[in-house]
Amino acid sequence: LTNKTTGHIIHFMSKRESKKAHILCRGLEVMKRQGYNGTSVKDIVDAAEVPKGSFYNYFASKEAFVLDAIAYTADENARWTQNILQKPGVPAMKRLENYFQSGAKSACGCEYEVGCFLGNMAQEMSDSSESIRCSLEKVLKTQTAMLAEVIEEILQECKNVDLNADLTAEFLFNAWEGALMRAKASKSPHALDAFMANLAPLFQHAA
Amino acid sequence: LTNKTTGHIIHFMSKRESKKAHILCRGLEVMKRQGYNGTSVKDIVDAAEVPKGSFYNYFASKEAFVLDAIAYTADENARWTQNILQKPGVPAMKRLENYFQSGAKSACGCEYEVGCFLGNMAQEMSDSSESIRCSLEKVLKTQTAMLAEVIEEILQECKNVDLNADLTAEFLFNAWEGALMRAKASKSPHALDAFMANLAPLFQHAA
Repeated sequence: LTNKTTGHIIHFMSKRESKKAHILCRGLEVMKRQGYNGTSVKDIVDAAEVPKGSFYNYFASKEAFVLDAIAYTADENARWTQNILQKPGVPAMKRLENYFQSGAKSACGCEYEVGCFLGNMAQEMSDSSESIRCSLEKVLKTQTAMLAEVIEEILQECKNVDLNADLTAEFLFNAWEGALMRAKASKSPHALDAFMANLAPLFQHAA
Repeated sequence: LTNKTTGHIIHFMSKRESKKAHILCRGLEVMKRQGYNGTSVKDIVDAAEVPKGSFYNYFASKEAFVLDAIAYTADENARWTQNILQKPGVPAMKRLENYFQSGAKSACGCEYEVGCFLGNMAQEMSDSSESIRCSLEKVLKTQTAMLAEVIEEILQECKNVDLNADLTAEFLFNAWEGALMRAKASKSPHALDAFMANLAPLFQHAA
């Protein structure tokens, strides 16, 4: 194995990077369930099965850890979102429905626990850490912009002039976050079903 | 002053009840900003300017405190909701818009901090405390039912058969919670504006 091929640099994870990713992923699982303030550095290292001191070799603080966890989650979400929303050969409205249905399936798969890590952090941390808030604002904006693209397609197809793609993307993205939160509180799919039932009617406009 | 008038029992707060309400209100202000895990019993008694020991004269635990705080907030919300949603002489759609606009004004008044205490607790605590989750589920259901009544009126007035009042109430209530969360993360009214921009179009159905 070599780090270089013709013209491309192939990036192999160093041992250090791999160890950091391990602590990040295991710690993230705990923080998803317990929140920021409910998770101690000890909880993170226990979950990763590494000594406490080694945490600080990779993260300057719990806040630095969560900033990395937000970036990691945003990357994962972006990949997943892009796959569904830009799938060739599928009508725009169907791609939008698939996106939320896939989210509902994944929420159901973990019995409506967790919800959305980014939403959880926004709710818990926006007032107490400005760097966490700014980082969340940035990644939520990127995700909303991906939704706006497909919504623009839908509005053009159905010649709907009552809605604005950016505002409807922001509305639906936040409505979905709210529905995930409610599903978590009710431990039932009802909030997600209610979301899906109102999705198509939103785009049906009076002539 | 007397506790009894003709036929009515007027309820005066006892000294004990008044002291408990004082600790509850002051502690709630702190917990609204810092969350459940970010608020210690010491934070609560410091905010109420009472000795730490006196907390346990009124609340068996921090969990018992938050259950009372949820009930108190739900009562306040119900009063406010009822005043707006059942105001005589105002068209149903206008009452619904007034309800959310009044919420937006209040969120703006505190610079988009806090959001909704019930939503915050749902997000932070649903996975870690079953008694908090059940109490939240109950009060969120009551609030959603109040919205469903006015939505039923709107649907009848505009002869919209695409929407179901209960599902649309659940959708809009959760969408609003999500918008408040996003406003908190962005420290801007944009999410609330996006919500308002999509409210009327949702009820405009294709003939």
